[in-house]
Amino acid sequence: MHQDPAFERAYAVILAGGSGTRFWPLSRRKQPKQLLRLFGRTTLLEQAVARVRGFIPPRRIYVFTNELVRREVVRVLPSIPRTQIVAEPASRNTAPAIGLAAHEIMARDHDGLMVVLPSDHIILKAAAFRRALRTACRLAATQGRSVSLGLKPTRPDTGYGYVRLGALEARMGDHEVYQVEKFTEKPPLKVARRYLASGRYLWNGGMFVWRASTLLSNLERYMPEMARGLARIAAAGGVHATSTLRRLYPRFEKISIDYALMEKISGLSAVAADLGWSDVGSWAVAYELSPKDRKGNVKPENSLALDSRANMLVSSKKFVVTVGVRDLVVVETDDALLVCARERSQDVGRAVQELERRGLEDLL
Amino acid sequence: MHQDPAFERAYAVILAGGSGTRFWPLSRRKQPKQLLRLFGRTTLLEQAVARVRGFIPPRRIYVFTNELVRREVVRVLPSIPRTQIVAEPASRNTAPAIGLAAHEIMARDHDGLMVVLPSDHIILKAAAFRRALRTACRLAATQGRSVSLGLKPTRPDTGYGYVRLGALEARMGDHEVYQVEKFTEKPPLKVARRYLASGRYLWNGGMFVWRASTLLSNLERYMPEMARGLARIAAAGGVHATSTLRRLYPRFEKISIDYALMEKISGLSAVAADLGWSDVGSWAVAYELSPKDRKGNVKPENSLALDSRANMLVSSKKFVVTVGVRDLVVVETDDALLVCARERSQDVGRAVQELERRGLEDLL
Repeated sequence: MHQDPAFERAYAVILAGGSGTRFWPLSRRKQPKQLLRLFGRTTLLEQAVARVRGFIPPRRIYVFTNELVRREVVRVLPSIPRTQIVAEPASRNTAPAIGLAAHEIMARDHDGLMVVLPSDHIILKAAAFRRALRTACRLAATQGRSVSLGLKPTRPDTGYGYVRLGALEARMGDHEVYQVEKFTEKPPLKVARRYLASGRYLWNGGMFVWRASTLLSNLERYMPEMARGLARIAAAGGVHATSTLRRLYPRFEKISIDYALMEKISGLSAVAADLGWSDVGSWAVAYELSPKDRKGNVKPENSLALDSRANMLVSSKKFVVTVGVRDLVVVETDDALLVCARERSQDVGRAVQELERRGLEDLL
Repeated sequence: MHQDPAFERAYAVILAGGSGTRFWPLSRRKQPKQLLRLFGRTTLLEQAVARVRGFIPPRRIYVFTNELVRREVVRVLPSIPRTQIVAEPASRNTAPAIGLAAHEIMARDHDGLMVVLPSDHIILKAAAFRRALRTACRLAATQGRSVSLGLKPTRPDTGYGYVRLGALEARMGDHEVYQVEKFTEKPPLKVARRYLASGRYLWNGGMFVWRASTLLSNLERYMPEMARGLARIAAAGGVHATSTLRRLYPRFEKISIDYALMEKISGLSAVAADLGWSDVGSWAVAYELSPKDRKGNVKPENSLALDSRANMLVSSKKFVVTVGVRDLVVVETDDALLVCARERSQDVGRAVQELERRGLEDLL
């Protein structure tokens, strides 16, 4: 591999600790979204690793996950050194994991760069992704900026956070780099439409680049208690200090990096990119992204769709027959069956909450 | 049991050779509709036997079925003598089976009455059924009539055959007995509406009463070739003459008793009855007949219907969740899954034909 100097000191931190419910019954606590083969033969997590492996070698890739699924993560990522696949002792959202990763990287390279990436989204334009990351790494390395990879919005999506852009800082390669004015939460539709029309907003895709040292400085300033805890863990040996980690990690505040830092820190830039990105937030989105037959059905080989249109059929082994139905999501697993109006697929999580309330642990 | 003299010489002939496809994927070649537990814990066939057992004892009940399912029929009907559970060597519709049954009865009682009954319908009013049969048996025994039990139509159903009534012959008990002018096939909706409005039509439920000897005379006259074949089988030992039966039975014309005789013979009466009868011809009908929750869903215990209305959910073991759907039929078995618009459930048979065309024998 011809090493791109922009990535020479870059470490990927892939966050794979999530346990979403929106792809129930396929997604479960023990099989979260990032471990689903929603598109093709590999999991979203494998695809996330594959996207960076071309320019960040496995020895500089970390994966943060949880104890329930670490075994499976190790299994699907044989190229990643096992010591770099870290199980968080408790679910504490992204800020503590990113802080912990920063210490690991600092221990290996005091000027190391962190490339923070989710593991449960898709990016169709791999080359554009690489170029955008290169720009972000240069900004972080040469100017000490904290960089958000922002996605150019294509619709007034109410499921995403947005980044409001300030002044144009620079043009680097084919990218515009902006100062970030602020991070905003998921907006109502009316507001999202305004954002889109203004041209001043990008989607926040949860992809960040900064020096590990910059991140730690910011944590010390804005999350001092968390920073102290992280320092204690680092002093004890970091992710390998299992007992210290198990004792201290669960005490951290459960907070995302967006809330903990991104809404507060200065020196924040955004690289605007068009990556063919989606966070695949529901069965409806998975439907949109999947190849369809002439009648708009996504269906397995062993199925028959009679007078049926625009359905998403997912079945493990069973033969599925539909007659006269449209716009449904039908998902069948070994122990459960979901039949959902496609436009209601964001409510699958509500159904899962109800299963939880009923104490149906086996189905979660 | 206090013996009702009207039934003293009555033999029940329950026809259970059918292999419908309309309840796919629950109904299969090896598990036809009459062996389904669509309502309650017993099969439709068991219910058919239970309905007559109170006044026709098991030693005078015959069940005609096919070789694929005879074993299962024997299993669910332990009270019926095995020699009276007959597997037809080939599927030849109802006329040959009824002719064969007539010879069996004649051999036991030359003046025996035959009560021909389907095994795959439901009758909610068991007492009314018994009274109607008593009237029919009296007509057949005392006047040598061939009697059709006709159902008072409650809607312009296009899925049933109709019986056109002639003059009122008699009132017997609480029944009106009519001469039959003719049997008609399933009519188009417009015609069915006219039938209903005229008050001169009954549904043909496939339930008939006559002396065995009367039936055989009619067969000799209108189906002479079949009558000769049946006589040869009877001479060889009837249903016990296995090799003769296997040789001759498959040569019979495949024809229903309606076409073979009912549209031709004279001396035909109809007893008009209100039995709470349905032939349960589709999932939609099964839905109508099943107990529902407050939102009109028919569903198993292990299910959750979120914002869902008027669905029929059938699942063996799997937990079923629906979100935002209505008027669906969802049926899950060990190897197949059906999702069908309820109003399209008469087209399930078409889907099964397509499976057959594709050579998916395991699913039939």
